[in-house]
This record gives sequence, C-alpha cells and structure tokens, in this order.
Amino acid sequence: MVGLTHKLDAFLDHCGVVGIWGHEESSKLAYLALYALQHRGQDSAGIVSLAGGEFRRHVDLGIVADVFDEQKLAHLVGPAAVGHVRYTTAGTNGLQDAQPLLAKTFKGYVALAHNGNLVNADSLKEDLEKDGAIFHSSADTEVICHLLAKSQAETMDQRLIEALSQIRGAYALCILTKEGLIGVRDPSGVRPLVLGQLKQGYVLASEDCAFELIEAKRIREIEPGEMVIINESGITSMSIKNEEKLPKAQCIFEHVYFSRPDSRVFDVSVYASRMSMGKQLAKEHPAEADVVIAVPDSGVIAAMGYAKASGLPFEMGLVRNHYVGRTFIEPESRIRHFGVRLKLSPVKDVVEGRRLVVIDDSVVRGTTSRKIVKMLRLAGAKEIHLRVSAPPTMHPCFYGIDTPCRSELIAATHTQEEIVKYLEVDSLGYLSVAGLHAALSQVDGQLKNGMCDACFTGDYPIPLNQIGKRLSARRKNSDEVGNVLIARSANWDETDAATSQ
Amino acid sequence: MVGLTHKLDAFLDHCGVVGIWGHEESSKLAYLALYALQHRGQDSAGIVSLAGGEFRRHVDLGIVADVFDEQKLAHLVGPAAVGHVRYTTAGTNGLQDAQPLLAKTFKGYVALAHNGNLVNADSLKEDLEKDGAIFHSSADTEVICHLLAKSQAETMDQRLIEALSQIRGAYALCILTKEGLIGVRDPSGVRPLVLGQLKQGYVLASEDCAFELIEAKRIREIEPGEMVIINESGITSMSIKNEEKLPKAQCIFEHVYFSRPDSRVFDVSVYASRMSMGKQLAKEHPAEADVVIAVPDSGVIAAMGYAKASGLPFEMGLVRNHYVGRTFIEPESRIRHFGVRLKLSPVKDVVEGRRLVVIDDSVVRGTTSRKIVKMLRLAGAKEIHLRVSAPPTMHPCFYGIDTPCRSELIAATHTQEEIVKYLEVDSLGYLSVAGLHAALSQVDGQLKNGMCDACFTGDYPIPLNQIGKRLSARRKNSDEVGNVLIARSANWDETDAATSQ
Amino acid sequence: MVGLTHKLDAFLDHCGVVGIWGHEESSKLAYLALYALQHRGQDSAGIVSLAGGEFRRHVDLGIVADVFDEQKLAHLVGPAAVGHVRYTTAGTNGLQDAQPLLAKTFKGYVALAHNGNLVNADSLKEDLEKDGAIFHSSADTEVICHLLAKSQAETMDQRLIEALSQIRGAYALCILTKEGLIGVRDPSGVRPLVLGQLKQGYVLASEDCAFELIEAKRIREIEPGEMVIINESGITSMSIKNEEKLPKAQCIFEHVYFSRPDSRVFDVSVYASRMSMGKQLAKEHPAEADVVIAVPDSGVIAAMGYAKASGLPFEMGLVRNHYVGRTFIEPESRIRHFGVRLKLSPVKDVVEGRRLVVIDDSVVRGTTSRKIVKMLRLAGAKEIHLRVSAPPTMHPCFYGIDTPCRSELIAATHTQEEIVKYLEVDSLGYLSVAGLHAALSQVDGQLKNGMCDACFTGDYPIPLNQIGKRLSARRKNSDEVGNVLIARSANWDETDAATSQ
Amino acid sequence: MVGLTHKLDAFLDHCGVVGIWGHEESSKLAYLALYALQHRGQDSAGIVSLAGGEFRRHVDLGIVADVFDEQKLAHLVGPAAVGHVRYTTAGTNGLQDAQPLLAKTFKGYVALAHNGNLVNADSLKEDLEKDGAIFHSSADTEVICHLLAKSQAETMDQRLIEALSQIRGAYALCILTKEGLIGVRDPSGVRPLVLGQLKQGYVLASEDCAFELIEAKRIREIEPGEMVIINESGITSMSIKNEEKLPKAQCIFEHVYFSRPDSRVFDVSVYASRMSMGKQLAKEHPAEADVVIAVPDSGVIAAMGYAKASGLPFEMGLVRNHYVGRTFIEPESRIRHFGVRLKLSPVKDVVEGRRLVVIDDSVVRGTTSRKIVKMLRLAGAKEIHLRVSAPPTMHPCFYGIDTPCRSELIAATHTQEEIVKYLEVDSLGYLSVAGLHAALSQVDGQLKNGMCDACFTGDYPIPLNQIGKRLSARRKNSDEVGNVLIARSANWDETDAATSQ
Repeated sequence: MVGLTHKLDAFLDHCGVVGIWGHEESSKLAYLALYALQHRGQDSAGIVSLAGGEFRRHVDLGIVADVFDEQKLAHLVGPAAVGHVRYTTAGTNGLQDAQPLLAKTFKGYVALAHNGNLVNADSLKEDLEKDGAIFHSSADTEVICHLLAKSQAETMDQRLIEALSQIRGAYALCILTKEGLIGVRDPSGVRPLVLGQLKQGYVLASEDCAFELIEAKRIREIEPGEMVIINESGITSMSIKNEEKLPKAQCIFEHVYFSRPDSRVFDVSVYASRMSMGKQLAKEHPAEADVVIAVPDSGVIAAMGYAKASGLPFEMGLVRNHYVGRTFIEPESRIRHFGVRLKLSPVKDVVEGRRLVVIDDSVVRGTTSRKIVKMLRLAGAKEIHLRVSAPPTMHPCFYGIDTPCRSELIAATHTQEEIVKYLEVDSLGYLSVAGLHAALSQVDGQLKNGMCDACFTGDYPIPLNQIGKRLSARRKNSDEVGNVLIARSANWDETDAATSQ
Repeated sequence: MVGLTHKLDAFLDHCGVVGIWGHEESSKLAYLALYALQHRGQDSAGIVSLAGGEFRRHVDLGIVADVFDEQKLAHLVGPAAVGHVRYTTAGTNGLQDAQPLLAKTFKGYVALAHNGNLVNADSLKEDLEKDGAIFHSSADTEVICHLLAKSQAETMDQRLIEALSQIRGAYALCILTKEGLIGVRDPSGVRPLVLGQLKQGYVLASEDCAFELIEAKRIREIEPGEMVIINESGITSMSIKNEEKLPKAQCIFEHVYFSRPDSRVFDVSVYASRMSMGKQLAKEHPAEADVVIAVPDSGVIAAMGYAKASGLPFEMGLVRNHYVGRTFIEPESRIRHFGVRLKLSPVKDVVEGRRLVVIDDSVVRGTTSRKIVKMLRLAGAKEIHLRVSAPPTMHPCFYGIDTPCRSELIAATHTQEEIVKYLEVDSLGYLSVAGLHAALSQVDGQLKNGMCDACFTGDYPIPLNQIGKRLSARRKNSDEVGNVLIARSANWDETDAATSQ
Repeated sequence: MVGLTHKLDAFLDHCGVVGIWGHEESSKLAYLALYALQHRGQDSAGIVSLAGGEFRRHVDLGIVADVFDEQKLAHLVGPAAVGHVRYTTAGTNGLQDAQPLLAKTFKGYVALAHNGNLVNADSLKEDLEKDGAIFHSSADTEVICHLLAKSQAETMDQRLIEALSQIRGAYALCILTKEGLIGVRDPSGVRPLVLGQLKQGYVLASEDCAFELIEAKRIREIEPGEMVIINESGITSMSIKNEEKLPKAQCIFEHVYFSRPDSRVFDVSVYASRMSMGKQLAKEHPAEADVVIAVPDSGVIAAMGYAKASGLPFEMGLVRNHYVGRTFIEPESRIRHFGVRLKLSPVKDVVEGRRLVVIDDSVVRGTTSRKIVKMLRLAGAKEIHLRVSAPPTMHPCFYGIDTPCRSELIAATHTQEEIVKYLEVDSLGYLSVAGLHAALSQVDGQLKNGMCDACFTGDYPIPLNQIGKRLSARRKNSDEVGNVLIARSANWDETDAATSQ
Repeated sequence: MVGLTHKLDAFLDHCGVVGIWGHEESSKLAYLALYALQHRGQDSAGIVSLAGGEFRRHVDLGIVADVFDEQKLAHLVGPAAVGHVRYTTAGTNGLQDAQPLLAKTFKGYVALAHNGNLVNADSLKEDLEKDGAIFHSSADTEVICHLLAKSQAETMDQRLIEALSQIRGAYALCILTKEGLIGVRDPSGVRPLVLGQLKQGYVLASEDCAFELIEAKRIREIEPGEMVIINESGITSMSIKNEEKLPKAQCIFEHVYFSRPDSRVFDVSVYASRMSMGKQLAKEHPAEADVVIAVPDSGVIAAMGYAKASGLPFEMGLVRNHYVGRTFIEPESRIRHFGVRLKLSPVKDVVEGRRLVVIDDSVVRGTTSRKIVKMLRLAGAKEIHLRVSAPPTMHPCFYGIDTPCRSELIAATHTQEEIVKYLEVDSLGYLSVAGLHAALSQVDGQLKNGMCDACFTGDYPIPLNQIGKRLSARRKNSDEVGNVLIARSANWDETDAATSQ
C-alpha cells in the first residue's frame, strides 16, 4: 500500500484505541476491533482485560495478527477490555512504550490506551521526577498514570478529572478501572472517539470501521471535552474542565489521509469527503489529459472524484503488490526507484502513450512522488499531471500526527515551480485550503467548523508554549514551527540512551 | 486480497518459476522476481544458485519475504539461479516438496523448478520404483529428476529431451545445470514462460510482471514445445518431441484470474483482456442499477470495463483490509460471515439505498459470494445484481490449476435459478464461453486460438488416460471429469501417511 | 544435577550478583562471572553496562548462555557493568522482575542487582504507593529504587545510606551509577559478597568461584554493614547504619548446600566445610555397611568425608545424566520414580547385594529421597542407610532462600521413626546442629560465630515483625513460623493477578 | 557443497540406536531410551513410528529434549518405533542426514537407524548412481536403503541379507518395516546392540543404560553377525553372511571412553572395567603423591580405581560446571585456557601445595590436558603426575569413532619425553595395551578375546582396501595408518569435538 507506506516515513505517533464493556468475550472483540484499526499503527499492539477485579495484559511489538493468538486471547478473560495499536519510530523504547499501560496505584489498577500527544508532558514529567516518581516508559501516557497515582481524590472520575486538568494537548483515551470503562476526548476534540452498541455491552473506538467486524451499531461520537463512564449503571456523561475555553479543533488530516474510507469521522463519511476533495481538485486544477489514475490505495477515491468531475476516464495505471514484507534486499547493483517498484507496478496498457492525471493524497518530502513519476515515464507515459487532494503540508503536527520538520517538507522549502521541476511533472496542482474546507462542507454532515488544519496553515489551536525538549529533539534541527521557537536539548542523547530492551 | 484469497481455498498447485543467467547477483534477482510472482504461490519459496560448479539451495515454507533474508541470499552466490514459489494443500509433504528440487545424478547436479502438472506421473513413478528408485517427495517434478538420472545420453539437452519425451501433461520448467539455464514449455504450451534481457544476462519467468522490478526487458515468450538453453554461447532454441501432435492449448484461466494485470501473458495484456471481459459481460448481462462495484482486488478491472460499457458509475463499495494475517480468532458467539468481514468492509456511503452491480471474477463453491451478498444487504444495498466475468467453472483442471471436484462446483451441480436463490441475489449473469473468447479476441494480440478452456467446457486438450490414483484421490469423490472416469485408489492413504516433517 | 534440581523445587529466590569496574570489556566479564554463578539462579539473567554516562540493559528469562550472545554483549559497551542471575517461581512477574533493575531518578540512572530478601518491603511499598509511587515489578529491589528516587540528599552514597536505613532484611547489592560501582552487605551480613582484583579494575561477586574464569584475584569479602564505592578514586569503604545493633548472621546454608564447592564463603572453603560435615556425620551416625555412595553432585564431597572418617570405601553408586532438559514426557503407563530416573541411574555393579551408606545434603519434603531409595532397592541394594549432611530443615527462610512452609517440611511434621518408614530406609541420621557448627569450626578460617541457622533452629536473627502479606501469601497456609504469626492476606489474588506478560 | 559435506559425514560416527516393538507408547519409550543414549550423539535426534501400516517420522537437529515435545510424540503413534541420536561435525548436511532414514521402496517403507561406518560405501554409491539412483543424504545408511530398494527378493529378511552381503564395515542397525523390528550387528560385532524385554514388547538399544529409564529387563546382546526379527511371531534369529570369515572385533573404546558407566557392554560392566583399568594403571605407573584427582566426569571411576590400588586418597580436585552452553563469548583480552576454565574449576583446598596424580581417560592432541595442567599449577599444585587410563591413541578409527589423523595425535608424533615436556607434567604414564586387555580380563564376564584395539595398535580387523576417496580426502594429506594411505589435513579443527562433552 504505497500511499500509506510512504507516509509512514513521515507521520509518526499514529495510534488507535478501543474499549469493550459488558461482553463476555471482550478481549476477542477488542482484538478484532484493533485489527480493523490496524491502519492507525502497526508497530505494537496490546490488550488489557478485566475479570472479577483481576487485570491481565498482553502487549507486544508487531501487528495485531502476530501479537495475539488463541492462547493469549484465552488468557485475557473477562467482560471488559481496552486495546491499542501504535506506530513508533525506530529509536523509541519499543515494548516498554507499548500500550495499554497498566499502572498499579494505591487506589487500584488503571489501564490506559491513548491516541494523541500532550504538549506539556515534559514539564509535568520533570515535576513528577523531582518529587521521586520513576518513569518506565517514554510515553506521554505514563504522565497521566502518575498524575492519577498522585491524586488523593476519592473516586476514579474525580481523580481522572483532576489529572486531566493538568494536561494540555490532544487525547482520545480509553481507560479501564474497576469502576468502569471510561472514554474521554480532549476539550478541542482533536482525535476522534466513537461509541457503539454491541449485542451485549458497549464499544469505544477511534473509528467506527471497527464496528462492522464486531457487529456493533454506531451510537454517536464522544464530544470534545466529554468523558463517558460505562459500567453496570449504564453510560454516564460529564464534562472535563476546559478553563482556557479552547475552541473545537478536530483534525482535518483524519479525513485527508489517516482514517479508513469506510469510517464516519466527526460525523462525516470519509469516503464521501475524499470523493468531494477529488471533485473540488478537478475544479481547481483541471488538466488536458487522457486518463486519471491514482497512487493506490489512498489516492483511489479522490481520483474517482476527479474523474467524475472532469469527465476523464478513471483507470488502474498502477497496481499494488500485496505481499510487501518488512524488509527487502536490493542487489548491490542498485535498482532505480527500488522501494517504489517493490510496492507499485505500472500497467503498460493504461500508461503507454497516454497523458495522465495522477492523483495522490499528499506530497511530503517529494522523494516518493518523484520515483513514481519516473516509473510512469519509463512505462511510456506521455504527460504527467500530478494532482494532490490536499493542500501543501507546511507545518508539523503536535497533536498526534508527527510530520517531519519544516526543512524536510518540500512544500515548505520550495516554490511550486521548483517542485514541478524536482518531480519532473508536466504540471502540479494542490487542493487549496479553502477548497478543502469547501469539499468537506459539501458532504452530508457538513463538516464546516472547528477543524484543526495547522499542518496546512500553521494556526495551532492548542498553545504550544509548554512543548518541551522532547518534541524539539525529535525534530532535531527544526527551527521555527508555526510561530513557536523550539529550544534544542543538550542532554537528550544521554537520557535516551538509557532505554533498555 | 480477497479475490485471490477466497479462491485459494479452491485452486491449488499454483506455481511460479524463474531462472537467471549471467548476472553476478543472480539469487537476489531471482528473489525479487519470485516476490513479483508471489501471487502464483504463497506456501513455499526456494532458490538454487550455481557458482563455479557448486550448487547452493535454500527452500522453506512461507512467503518470499519470510523465507529469505540478507544472510541466506548472501549464501546463494553465483551468476546463475533458478527459483520457485508454490501453493500447496495442507496435507502434502510440505518442505520435502518445496522447489526447486536439487538432484545429484551421476552426470552432475540438476536443479528444477516446475509449474504445471503431469498426467502420467504416477505410472512413471511406479515403473521407476519397481526398478529400485527411491522417491523423496510427492512432487511430479521428482519423476523428471529420476528420468534424467536414468538417461545414459551424453549431453544434458539430450538427456532432458529423452526424459521429457516420456512425460505427458503441462509444464513450464526452469532447469539449472552446469551446462546452462534451460527453459521449456510443454508441446501444448499450457503454462506461460517468458524470456527477458537483463543489463547483464537473461531471465526466464512465468510472467513478465517479474521484469519490472529487476529492470529486465521482455524479449519474447518461449514457444509451446520449445526448449531454450542459455549459457556462455548465448541462447540456443530446439524443439522437444511432440509425437502426439497435440494442439496448442494455452490456459485461458491465466487471463481470467491467475496472472497479474500488469503482465502480458501469451502476448496479450491481462489488464486489457479483463477490461474486455467486463465490457463483454455488460453486453451479455446488462442490469438496471445505480452503481457498479467490484469484489476487490481481482474483480476491479472487469468492473471498470462493465461500468464503461454500461454507462453506470464505478465506485468502491467494498474496501479490503490490508493487514489480514494467516489466522484469525473468532468469538465463540459467532460473527456472521466472519471470514469475509475480516477481509472486506462495505462502504455505507456507496452501498446504502443503492441498486448494485457487483462484479466478481469467479464463483466456485458459492459460499464466499453468498457472504459478500449478505454483508452488502446489511449495509443497506437495495438490489444486488451479481455479474461474473468468467463462465461457470464446471470441470477440474489437470494441468496445474487444481479446482475442486465437480460435486463441489456450484455451477456444476445447481441450476442458474438455484444459484440465484442460494446466493440471494436479485440477478446473476456469467460471461459466456463464446463471450470470453470474443473478449480475448478483441484485445491487441488477438488471443484467438489454441486456448485451453477445459475448466469451463470439459474439453481436455491433453489426454487424461494416464492419470493415476493420485489425482483421483485428491478429488476423493470425483466421478466423471470431462469424459474420463477416474479410478479410486484403495491404498492411497497408507502411502500418503508416510510423509514426514 | 539431581542434588541441585530436587532442591530447586523447595528453595526459591536464589540469586547471584556481580559488578565490574574499570575493565574495557566489563559486560563480557560480568557475563562470564554470571555463568560461574549460574547455580545461584537459572530463571533470568541480566546485565546493565555503563559507558560515558550511557546505560544499556539486557535481561531475559533463561540461563546466561541463552540470554546473551555475541551481539547482545557487543551492545553492552563500557568499562562498568552489574549483572544478576535469578531463580523465580513460576507465577511471578517473569521478565518484569528480572534484574538488574535500571531506574531513572531525577538525579540520574541507577542500576541495581540484589541478592536477598527484605522483611519490610511490603510496608515500605504501601507507604510509597500511598504517596503516588507506581511499582512496575514485584521485586523487593524496586522498593530500594523508589527510596533512592525520593531521597533529596546530594550525593549517591548519601542517598543510598538514607534509603538503606529504611530497609530491613538480607541484602547483598551491586549498584551501578555514574558515581561508581557500589557493593553493600546488610548489617547482619546474611548474604555473601566478595571483592576481587582484575588485571584492570575490580570485581564484586556473590562467590569467588566467579573469579577463576575471569582471572581475578580475591582481595577480601565485603564486611557485614559495609558499603564500598569503587570509582576513579579507588575503593572507598563506609559503614551503613545499624541502629538496631543486629548481630552478624551469615547464612549457614551457603555452606551446607547453596555455594559452589570451589568457593570460599565467609572466608572458609566450602569444599573443606562439606568434607568436614561428612566426617562429623560419620562420627555421629556410623553404619554397618559395605560402601558409601552419594546423591550426586551435591552430596559427593560430604560422602567422601564420611567414607574417610568411617573407613568405608567410597564408590559412584549413582550416576547423573548430563542432558536433562527442562521438560520430559512420560508415558501414560507411568514409569515408577520417573523424575529421579531421568536424572540418576544406579550402577548395578556397585549397588547389587551391597549394604549402602547414602549421603545426601538435605531432605526437604522427602519425596525425592524416597524415590532414590526405591531405585537403589530395585538395583539390588541389600541395606540402605541414609545419612544427611545437614540438620533437619524445620523453618522457612526469610532472608533470601525460600523454603516451603513448615507443613511441607517432612522433618517439621514427622518423627524420625515416621520418616524412616516413609523413606523405606534401614536407618536415617541427620547431622546435629551442634555437629554442623563443630564441623564448620574445624576447618581453616574457623567459621565459629555469627552464623544464621534459622532454617534449622527457628532462631531468626533479623526481626520478622514487619513481614507483610506478600511472604505470607507465598506460603499460603503457613502458620506459625519460628515464633511469628503471619497474617493472611484477603486480597492477594487480585494484586497478583495484575501481572502481565 | 556436496563434495565437501559428504566427506565430513564419513567420520561422524558417534551414534546411538533404539528400536521398540509391541508397546502402545513405542515412540515415548524410544524417546526416553534416546535420552539415556544422548551421550552417544548430541547433534540430531529422530524417531520413526509405525501404526497400522502408516509410518510417521520426526527428526531434527539438537538434543532429544529439544527435538521432541508432547505434541510431536503424540503424532508418532503406533506400537513400534526406531530412534537415533547422532553426533555430527559442524559442516555436514545437517537435517538431511538425520536418522532414522525413512525410504519408500516398491515393496514398502523401510526405516533405518544405523550406528557405525561402512568401509565400501563410496564404491557402492558410485555403482548405484551410475545406474540412475539419486542420493538425498550423505549418510552411509542411504546406501543400505538403495540396496534394499534394488533387491528383487521376496521377503524383507531376504532383501536385507542380500543388501548386507554387499556392505563391509561396522554396523549395528535397528530397522523397522511392516514385517517387524529388525536388529543386526555386523559379522565382526564392532558396535554393540542389546535386546531387552518390556512389560509389553521388546526393546533393542546400543547400550542397556537405556533400559533403566523405561523399566526394561536385559535379555542378551545381539551376536556379531546375527540378525533378529521381532514381530507378532516372537523373536526369530538368523545369521547374515560372513564370507570373509572376519573374526569378532568388538570395540574396546566403548569400554575405555564411549559407553556410559552404568551400561554392560559386550556382557561386561563398564563401571567395573574402568575401575579395573584404574587399578592396573596404578600397578603400571605408581607415583609419589598426596592425592588422586580425576578429570571429571569421564576420568572419575578410573581415578577411584587408581586410588584404591595405590592407597592414595581420592579427592575432587576439579569440579565441572553444569551449565555449559553451546557457545561462549570470550573477551578480546584473551583468558588463558578459556575453554577448559569454562568447564572445569580447580578446588584450591584440594590442590594447593599438593602432589597430584591426575587421571584422564585419554590424551588425544594434548591441548586440553596441557590447559588443565596449567590451571592446576595456577591453583597451587606442587607436582602433577598425569596418568592416562588407556594406551596412547595412535591410529584413526574407520568403524564408527572418529579420531584425528595421525599427525595430530600427540602420541603418534611425539616421544613420551616430548609429551611430558609439552604438557608440563612431572611424570606421565599411559596404560599399556597389554594392561588394558589384562584389566578387561579381570572383571566379571572376562572380556578377553575378539576386541578391536586398532586405535591403539593399528591392527584393523576389517580390511580397509575399499575405503574410498571420501575417507582419504577427509584426512587430506597422507599418512600411513595400518596398511592404508590416508590423506592428511594440515589444520584439522574438529578433532576436539570427538572427545568433548
């Protein structure tokens, strides 16, 4: 899946969360839901189950299908479970950071699955460590655990509200305690979280594409700043504090690229929004061409939209190889565009002698696009008009989708003309920010307001003034991001090195 | 890949072969070519390389990406190599049958990679065993090894021609000996084999989709009954005997389903032939509907053809899950149509309230199609018109694609009306045999004559009178196949049981 | 090694520790030292190394030879390292409890390897948790980490003295921080720790049998209540607080059974002390017999002592199988005394028709001894006089050697007569407590005073009044131990159940 | 590849065989018997079982405990089984050569387990290959399979007698066919094979130490040149042809070193014969010394005999480490005598300041002995008198025990004086050949005549004139052994392997 894969080099910290309550095979349902959310993270997977006051946990590196087997799921007994899939960068703590975390506090065990990123994790961590806390992972999520352990409030929901009142950033959480299954979205609602009904019990998940497989019925999305507690008493909803009165800021990138097309996200069909983006793209950037093709799979729906709006025929000019493994060995006599060739092949019959509109859903560094273009040229393409179904990615995300630093974003460092030249395309068109919003507003559900488009605009809805050394270190040479200057860390390497196997 | 996957339950003995000559990194190229041929067999993979008179072999169960790593390829030194991918049924010899076979004869080592099936393997085997031969695998290919070892002819090509003169059936072979790399197709040319040029040296492969990745240039297909020997003297071509004057009989199923769409097979683009089949299907079986969708991935191209010819819009009503593992654990409280749901999800936005034309490329037992139909109904489809881009599969294949026995082929045992009822579709249309031939004759290359369509018609071009107990046993209850009565084996189980790990 | 193995069922929490300072291949030396200390624990092994402020850790379940390979050791760079081997019960936290622990405190990383058991770990843990601490293992050692993290003292040695002042129990610690390698023994000196000189640098180890392999020269033992800090400034010694003025109480069991015979422990040769015990045993319990044999390997030296003192010949009447694996499959038609037969075989030539003195170093539950006796009878032994080179084990150990609860100790629940009958021996003699002390006082070094013999006498030198629910739970039905009543925990199961994989 | 590997395979040689007939859990008994025979080969293990005409096989590299688990044994159903353990050098064919072999001949399946070496395997193989046979392993045993497959005789015993009449060399075979379990020893009876009675059924094994664990009763040894067939009709005995009238030539090395001390081999207790060798050694080579110690474990019994005869005390001056793994990593700053130190430690208390008699059972190259001597010196030994309980090993074995070529046998290339100097011992004494025979004749059973002592004397009882290029090539460069010219290796690495473990 080239579309996804080449992005994975660029966007990190993808995660998917799930929670099941009230089903006797909760861990099996969580497992199937994680499997449906696998596109949100492929590096680790985990489930914590709860039965009669007893928590059981299994997490491991790898995809859901490899992490779990019949025996491991059989071990995860009980009517409640939370699960997590995670994408992580090579150098991180690996297994130690795998979620859900399971922490023993004096008031009992808490299992947490987190999608998102906190902007004040580092300063909170420093305070906690000064006070004697020992951190075992590098995950932001552990900060929440320690805040919960510190809280002297009586009930879990009070302790949780107290803990969440101290954190800033983006989070969709599934939390499991003896008191119940808890789902929370941050006050801005950056990351999605949706509630469904099982034949017995309830399910929370990052996307409702997880519902199809487990035969759940969508109820509704959790609201920004809402906390729901699901237990024997049913579903209780309450608000978490939002003192700063942050506006709603749902991640537009979930629609552009991250979510699955068979999901409804922020109450809008992703399939429909992508089709609409493709149509809008055709309006903004028509092309004299013979055929529209997509970079599969992520560009396919927008390409069909473009084809419809433009009247050009849509064809499969590139086919994916379905058996791509983790690593591939290249001959020493290098093969041109090896990585792209492994994943995609041109269909000569479609490409040869034709003027192509090629639809992709993003151009981040430009290296992959350039290779695809070359491959299509070799296959005989006469003209290549690249159309991107999103605006230029200009700014890093601090809320759970990790983009490279500005200096690596081709759109942030080069003019349109330079990019055309670099990619060796005949023409290039990005969807405009306004066009993107327009496209979203034209689908059922009318996703008009309260979207975070900071990766395109640099307008960060949640203040970044507490972002610590960690984020900066990750983007080593990143300079100005949005309007924030990131300080560089002198001693990060030393700290990082203490990670174990 | 649901299309392929659900078929794999039904068609066995898929294989892909490759040979490299004259490239210093022959095993790496063979490995990459096998990777591109992975769709032809996922159960075992292997390569034999040759360097300075020394043969090295690595075969294992699993897909190419898992079977080989840097170290194993580094071990397979030398400028020549043959490789193989294989699909095998659960009960077979496993690793022992993995190819390429490497046999030591008195005249030297011979490595063989074979795609196809011999119809007289069992009687040859019996004769050889009576004479003292000890067989170590259950692969037909080993019969060829023993015939080669027995031959007292002077040169390898003479010994090979002598051996091949005794065998009947379908075969595309890549053979490696110290004398050179040899490629052969049987006199009927059932299985494909294509020759390409590397920057240094040559490549033989089952399909030319393997050429893109290794930057080879297609030269031509090996002819039915042709043997080419590639060595320092270049390429020598000769004819193998065809005493029975068998007609050309190239496998039509390669175009219908088996080959990759970016291959040219029998000198015709598979993409083009499938598009043509879809168009023909629309002519034969129009439908009053709102939208055309495909069972991805194998039905997609025909669906686009159908859409074009019918004027109906093509949409992605079903999306594939890309992370399907080998095994999945289902809750005990069974999920309806679990297997299909794992692989496919309906896109509500496309399906709901719509009248669908659903294109699939085959209906074998009907069980999977029935599940897909139900899933689409649950997603809100108003009408479902199933269109199959091939004729009904009525007869087993004895030439290298293993279909179930007639009693399991829904089209062989039920009327059209019964199938419609069983699948719960509103209408059903198969491409006619004449239409299939017509579709093929309308594409560039005009694949008109000399095709084997026995799986649709029962007209077996290579006589089956020597088919032994083994094939019959495999199809336990199979009775009349085509016009041949298969004898049942009394003692097969005993023989088969001696297989080891 | 049957002697050891059958004990392993009874005595848990064996551990061995090592520390290396000032050698460029510190982790390799630690690895070899752990290998020599393998008899102290076979379930997990680990090393933390330190290079230029960077800590690296590798721990895993299994024996040293399996846990480490060339690559893993190569990763553990740096001139300082600490290591640990551990025996753990099946139900514990497994990998999470594997040592050395590596904890990040606000003042830097601390790696700890611990041999022993704290008697107030649970109450300290409860206090820490109330204050918000989150524990990640069930090891006592983590309590020390949290106490260190809490301490606001300036220097590591101050923080460590502050932390150790709060703990009670038995401990020999190897601690690695940027400030240096630290070795400590508790004020009673229950567990051994010995200092050696490398060609470059220094080594600390549980036993000096680890020195032979790494070519270290024994310097001296660390004193009870002594802390040594090894760094660039050399070796600094200081006292840790001992407010309760606890007497010296070195573990007598190290000599009886646990240490290797080629070690000097508490300044006395273990070989010599065992030989002396055998001689004393002969004096206390002579026998009319033809030959003295041992239960190998642990009983061999005492048996030789017995033979010498008694004038009877020593022979190898039982030979060990060297290839005992972890698990063995028994036929359903049960084999008598299967477990013992796997490990030991009688030598008919020695046993048949003879009156045997059989020397073992302990009889815990009696089940293994009974099987050995039966096996010797089947091999033709005429009489069997069992002589045990230690007093009856009557009381559990709370200082690092885990014995079963009293109810499972045959000597605690049965009379001598009953035991003779149960074991089906002709006579039985245990070494007396006085005899044991006498035997130790007769060897060079004169190990006379300050020994802990609580497992034989019930006189616990370190007060047990803070022993918490954990120890009690482990000995589920244990009642009176020594003179201390253990409270049973109501909610242990719940806590224990939260262990993860 | 093959050329090299089949050479290595000729001299592997340590092997153990077992056969079970008439017990419903035959494979479990075979597994336990192999476990008891593990000292005869640690590199591969395998079992073939037979149930109702169905053969099942599992073989793998590794020790018995690792090769089999509950599931694998459960698969090996049926009342009859044969098993094999094998020692192989690193470079050989590995799994392909693992036994028992299972060959399908036209007359049915035959499973063979073989201990020994054929001297005419290569010429037979060449003939068979010329005739078209394809060999799949490099094991001599496969020659027997092909001869069996070629035979047109009616019954299995006739076919077997026909096949065996063509082979020359040493063999003890366990063969399983539908006709029964067959045990054979070659006409000279070089390798042992013993028959036992199970509660149900019968057992054949290389040594009767395998009987203890499975509760079998020793019946008798199979005679040289005898073939027994065990089936429903009971036990039938017949003679195989011995046209050359070869004399009985039972391997003396089984008693000196190879067999387990709790076995009776050639009707004599190995324990007793070793004790007798030690006594004889004391007579031939007394020493002025303080104490007798052994190189454990193999030297222990002879050392006890030496001590008895000499009146000197026996002590454990060297202790073995029980946790030696397959590989160990040494620091780059080399440790002196690393390999020896890993396995053995000196006990200072025994060694320091003492004059030692050190008993070993062989000195092959001398390198290990030299290291042990140095280690004892470092531990403070005053004098070291090395006594070897066997004559100097001067000649290679061609009948199943691999010794290095003459040029590497220290006793074959150096004078006694030179060896004393090289080993740095104060004196050295080997048991004389006459003394060895005398020692054997003094034990019960009186093992007087018909022994093969070629490794000590060069008198090869089975003519070597058919030894092919394979054997010679292995000892690349020439050297006269007996009356045969052997190729000699300049740097023979693997020698040590034949003496270790």
